[in-house]
Amino acid sequence: ATTFRASEHQHIRYNPLQDEWVLVSAHRMKRPWQGQVEPPLLTTVPRHDPHNPLCPGATRANGEVNPYYEGTFLFDNDFPALQPDAPSPGPSDHPLFQAEAARGVCKVMCFHPWSDVTLPLMSVPEIRAVVDAWASVTEELGAQYPWVQIFENKGAMMGCSNPHPHCQVWASSFLPDVAQREERSQRAYQSQHGEPLLMEYGRQELLRKDRLVLTSEHWLVLVPFWAVWPFQTLLLPRRHVRRLPELTPAERDDLAYIMKKLLTKYDNLFETSFPYSMGWHGAPMGSEAGANWDHWQLHAHYYPPLLRSATVRKFMVGYEMLAQAQRDLTPEQAAERLRALPEVHYRLGQK
Amino acid sequence: ATTFRASEHQHIRYNPLQDEWVLVSAHRMKRPWQGQVEPPLLTTVPRHDPHNPLCPGATRANGEVNPYYEGTFLFDNDFPALQPDAPSPGPSDHPLFQAEAARGVCKVMCFHPWSDVTLPLMSVPEIRAVVDAWASVTEELGAQYPWVQIFENKGAMMGCSNPHPHCQVWASSFLPDVAQREERSQRAYQSQHGEPLLMEYGRQELLRKDRLVLTSEHWLVLVPFWAVWPFQTLLLPRRHVRRLPELTPAERDDLAYIMKKLLTKYDNLFETSFPYSMGWHGAPMGSEAGANWDHWQLHAHYYPPLLRSATVRKFMVGYEMLAQAQRDLTPEQAAERLRALPEVHYRLGQK
Ligand SMILES: O=P(O)(O)O[C@H]1O[C@H](CO)[C@@H](O)[C@H](O)[C@H]1O
Ligand SMILES: O=P(O)(O)O[C@H]1O[C@H](CO)[C@@H](O)[C@H](O)[C@H]1O
Repeated sequence: ATTFRASEHQHIRYNPLQDEWVLVSAHRMKRPWQGQVEPPLLTTVPRHDPHNPLCPGATRANGEVNPYYEGTFLFDNDFPALQPDAPSPGPSDHPLFQAEAARGVCKVMCFHPWSDVTLPLMSVPEIRAVVDAWASVTEELGAQYPWVQIFENKGAMMGCSNPHPHCQVWASSFLPDVAQREERSQRAYQSQHGEPLLMEYGRQELLRKDRLVLTSEHWLVLVPFWAVWPFQTLLLPRRHVRRLPELTPAERDDLAYIMKKLLTKYDNLFETSFPYSMGWHGAPMGSEAGANWDHWQLHAHYYPPLLRSATVRKFMVGYEMLAQAQRDLTPEQAAERLRALPEVHYRLGQK
Repeated sequence: ATTFRASEHQHIRYNPLQDEWVLVSAHRMKRPWQGQVEPPLLTTVPRHDPHNPLCPGATRANGEVNPYYEGTFLFDNDFPALQPDAPSPGPSDHPLFQAEAARGVCKVMCFHPWSDVTLPLMSVPEIRAVVDAWASVTEELGAQYPWVQIFENKGAMMGCSNPHPHCQVWASSFLPDVAQREERSQRAYQSQHGEPLLMEYGRQELLRKDRLVLTSEHWLVLVPFWAVWPFQTLLLPRRHVRRLPELTPAERDDLAYIMKKLLTKYDNLFETSFPYSMGWHGAPMGSEAGANWDHWQLHAHYYPPLLRSATVRKFMVGYEMLAQAQRDLTPEQAAERLRALPEVHYRLGQK
């Protein structure tokens, strides 16, 4: 019988955090690509555009004028998907027609006053200010809402409609689907094994090494064993930390530093401003914040769509939507490529 | 207190078939869109291109020459994600690192010898031939594999790399993720309520009417109460049918006819060849085909990405990937728009 090799033989892998399977078919990278390519990047974003509603001094859709902010800037999303006061749909009349109330707030956070920078092109202290702003907004909205979802959509390919460096924060009165899955899995793992799932997972990856991308004093970046997107990564603190506000000053500095390294590698991979969606997951908050959430470990997911080049992405369509996620290179191959990339940004190195 | 109105007040809805929630925020359609628009369609696909590997008489990547087929044409995918003989990864050494064997076959099915037609532009008898070919391939591959996933990626936006009208068939030795979810939900519903989930669901939608798009003697098309994609639909037989091969000749004719109507409405919505991924779900087969699968009801899902126009799509990114699916119009609004559209194709009407 042939010996199994992950890079040659398709197989399925289990994601114990989100209770999902992925089909890994690495031999498929050999097929030619004749499908859609993405439009090339608009490389000339002006540093300041008075008509861009995210810029300092600009007027937003609701008539408010932005301050001339110099660091991060947080404000209410003018077109929020979640509003604080929506009435309840009332009890449902049938088990197949269940609706429930959803309340919340949506905010936008600018990372920097300039439109022509991105996180990897910002300085470590500037990124550290973003980390602090993330921790504060989590604390502020978590006082009222059980779930505070911080996420960044970067790049037009990821539906981002504004090139100014920013993220969003959607806080909700309910635990969203993915949060519910992670809650169930982490709770079950803790009760079965007596320690948090992601603490053991991080420790194992440090031993196994082949999926590690970056390590620092306080953080790990790795391509998870069950990654779905070609260059997906998981960012984990080494210490058991449940939520962003718990991070110490040293951990925050180190986070800024490792994020800069990771995002620089991402940009260097295809010499482009690497698109992705990323977001933070931490223990639920709100009125239950005081309960025991020790099974939670804070983490960030990075989901970048590119597969072969700056213009050829992975499409999660057909089989993926109807049956199961499928990937075209192994997580170990992805980690190896990311590890090998320089930690100096290609645009700065050229100078 | 304000009275709840689904089109004004965000709320969450439950998908009992796939055990997922969706956030419905219909008021968000008011926001302006300044993000990425899709490239306009290549409108001039030649009827026959000898270099297109899906065309009659063309040579494929593996050197095989296609016959001069006149109806549908089924062949092995030259770059299959699933192969019949992959060795097993062997037992896993840790609960967080679980991998399993995956075996299967991937086929491609051309719908028609011409590259410049799509299903809605084909005649009802030509579509009926596709239905028959779907039933046969399900029977053939289902003899060996527990899951036979038929799916169509239509349009470059959906990662489809070839304009020739075709679908794919991936059969696997395992029940994919979505199939497992639908299996669990339908089994639990049957054991609790004594009838198949989707039989009761179809009956309820016929009574409630506001999500119906099309009805025929043997079939229903509706926008499910829990739809995620803006114009997502569910296609259901009225009779209890577990799998495609069980369809009677009358049901197959009627399926061809209702598919032509649905896909014509889709094309008419934004006067474009409407992109989507679609696929069939029926009871598992393979060695367990003879077990009791009465809780299953055959159905097809249509997942089209367009939201506002032929070039503005819904991006399932950031919040959707990290937290929960979110939609920008209600399923009832989508059904109403689809119902109101003509059943004659805009390109045929113009003649
Ligand atoms: O096989 P194709 O059409 O080249 O590929 C397309 O469909 C597959 C199955 O949904 C996906 O895995 C690919 O990402 C997509 O580009
Ligand atoms: O709010 P934005 O950036 O305009 O919108 C983007 O992010 C949202 C949250 O992930 C998505 O629902 C939208 O589809 C996407 O275009």
